[in-house]
Amino acid sequence: MTKRKNTWHVTYRRPIEYDIVEAQDLFSPENDALLSMGRIENARRFIVVDSNLYKYHSAKLRNYFAHHHINAKIVTFPGGEENKSMESFLSLMDELVSFPIHRRDEPIIAIGGGVLTDVVGFLASSYRRGVPHIKVPTTLMGYVDASVGIKNGINYYGIKNRLGSFDPPLQVLLDKSLLETLPRRHVLNGICEIIKLAVIKDIELFALLEDHGVHCVNTRFQDDVGDAILHRAIEAMVDELQHNLFEENLNRKVDFGHTFCYGLETSHVKDLLHGEAVMLDIATSVLIARERKLLSEGEVIRIFDLVDRLGIMLNTEILDPYLLWQCLEERTCHRNGRQNVPFPDRIGNCVFINDIRLDEIQAAVKSLPHWLVEKDDKIRELR
Amino acid sequence: MTKRKNTWHVTYRRPIEYDIVEAQDLFSPENDALLSMGRIENARRFIVVDSNLYKYHSAKLRNYFAHHHINAKIVTFPGGEENKSMESFLSLMDELVSFPIHRRDEPIIAIGGGVLTDVVGFLASSYRRGVPHIKVPTTLMGYVDASVGIKNGINYYGIKNRLGSFDPPLQVLLDKSLLETLPRRHVLNGICEIIKLAVIKDIELFALLEDHGVHCVNTRFQDDVGDAILHRAIEAMVDELQHNLFEENLNRKVDFGHTFCYGLETSHVKDLLHGEAVMLDIATSVLIARERKLLSEGEVIRIFDLVDRLGIMLNTEILDPYLLWQCLEERTCHRNGRQNVPFPDRIGNCVFINDIRLDEIQAAVKSLPHWLVEKDDKIRELR
Repeated sequence: MTKRKNTWHVTYRRPIEYDIVEAQDLFSPENDALLSMGRIENARRFIVVDSNLYKYHSAKLRNYFAHHHINAKIVTFPGGEENKSMESFLSLMDELVSFPIHRRDEPIIAIGGGVLTDVVGFLASSYRRGVPHIKVPTTLMGYVDASVGIKNGINYYGIKNRLGSFDPPLQVLLDKSLLETLPRRHVLNGICEIIKLAVIKDIELFALLEDHGVHCVNTRFQDDVGDAILHRAIEAMVDELQHNLFEENLNRKVDFGHTFCYGLETSHVKDLLHGEAVMLDIATSVLIARERKLLSEGEVIRIFDLVDRLGIMLNTEILDPYLLWQCLEERTCHRNGRQNVPFPDRIGNCVFINDIRLDEIQAAVKSLPHWLVEKDDKIRELR
Repeated sequence: MTKRKNTWHVTYRRPIEYDIVEAQDLFSPENDALLSMGRIENARRFIVVDSNLYKYHSAKLRNYFAHHHINAKIVTFPGGEENKSMESFLSLMDELVSFPIHRRDEPIIAIGGGVLTDVVGFLASSYRRGVPHIKVPTTLMGYVDASVGIKNGINYYGIKNRLGSFDPPLQVLLDKSLLETLPRRHVLNGICEIIKLAVIKDIELFALLEDHGVHCVNTRFQDDVGDAILHRAIEAMVDELQHNLFEENLNRKVDFGHTFCYGLETSHVKDLLHGEAVMLDIATSVLIARERKLLSEGEVIRIFDLVDRLGIMLNTEILDPYLLWQCLEERTCHRNGRQNVPFPDRIGNCVFINDIRLDEIQAAVKSLPHWLVEKDDKIRELR
């Protein structure tokens, strides 16, 4: 504290620290990774687990905590954007309030996809003004995106992540075997975030996706090639987030694909996964970038070709330019009065744009279906 | 980021910085203190103001923002512990959601007592995962306690501050003239927190209260003696909080009086102010400390004498030892399995106790009324 006349100046540096750790077979009784943080003697754990995963693994999970003599309260939670709500948040809170955990050494454990870890992260950060939480992603979206950073939240008033907080997890545990049974649509959902990172930041990651993406979707990333892509994606994400964990800098490369997507998601909450909305945003942005001569025709084709080869479907019918414009205006408030939209200026790099116009969005939305249909011809032409 | 085999280690230091500034006549048009943080051109402000204060100052406040050409949305909020609720929080949130402020440079302004600034602090920290807020305390409790630190919250399930966050204000503005019209009961409410600080940390502050406390209550701290006490109290508070803003250390001197009080408050939410509950806690704690020979009989009398002289009424009838014990157990969870109760071992210093027993609480509660009644005899005896 320094005290000038009539002023007290409070200053502090809060240390933030957490590990993202690969760990195989988390629920095997002999594996103690899940309990490596916090007390284990005479201990409790509040665990929120994805309902679907719990259908298949309930016995294994219960057995795990019983084996380690942990007083565990396991609560299930359904995935899906429509459950990222105040109602879900409060119903989880009611369960938590009735199970008294210690403030510091009995971390909440969140096992599920991005929606679940986002809601449980906000739960943990609000309860007692913050208790620790551990994230165990069970979807590819969680694995490479939601679980890596410190953001959590719930939707409110139809606005994505309107409430939430920045709260570092105590630990993130990555068990790749949990991805093995993912439905294809959910693998593609996560791949969209990897494509995002590749396009704005890492051309080698992009090339890896071109060469091995289809194989990795089919094998659910279970082999070494899968590892190579996942590691590179996580590395890129941590590299972007680490020095800007609390978003002091509002020019964020990882916001690529996250300008127009929120309105799409909340308007089509039951039909659209987050990654699918991100990809529609990316497709629109890439075409605006092309019109602005930031990307060449060849680069645009290369991006659409990858999307196509991976089997990612783009429902362009839901792209309403006015809705996208509205989202951009909302994001402009969020980015403190500036658009700050990251656009690739080549594959693997980006610049920030602040003068996007409605007519550009309209033109991009109008031409997008043609690009998707005529891409093959164009590729032939180029070759 | 350091990457060991299969582990990414994320580490960061978050800079926290804010000023607590004395400022006279905040709502005079020519005073720009209230707008010194954030944008002022083409700007909005969301202001939450105590309903009672607004009754008297609405024209002045509206005029202030009009004078500075600020698009201001002023929302009123009633003080009182019973309004520190999820319902109030959500109804404020609904107002906020419908008034789009920038994320960084249009800070929310909270003008009111500790309940109001606690609720609005949580509102600001949750909205968009955190927007800045400025606190303007209008009660003595807010002035020397609630507004100084970074804790906010709401009650939930009848448990005090069960939800909330640690979120540093952008600025705290202290306008002492706002205390001028405070009802006596609310002055005494704040004085209880000053007594707390004096007893566990600052014997000179205690002596100042003995010499000038009555005068300051009567004059609402408006003169230099009032300044001396307020400055010393804020200084002590900042000194305790600054290096432990996020409560990494659970041995907190400022928790004195805050072990048994929460259950009292939430059980008597309409009858008891926070400071009154704190003082009942202090009275009980002081008698346990005496039984343990931490405090001498003379010191105990000195404390009760100050309380009496200031005219603080202690409603000892509501002291139920089992309720106090329950609170202690809850606090033990909150202090991560240890009681960590600060007890004075002389006036101006404290130690931390971890083995308080129910029978001690029972004995203290039983003897407390006698101490209050017979204190005068004892003082005579001692002199």
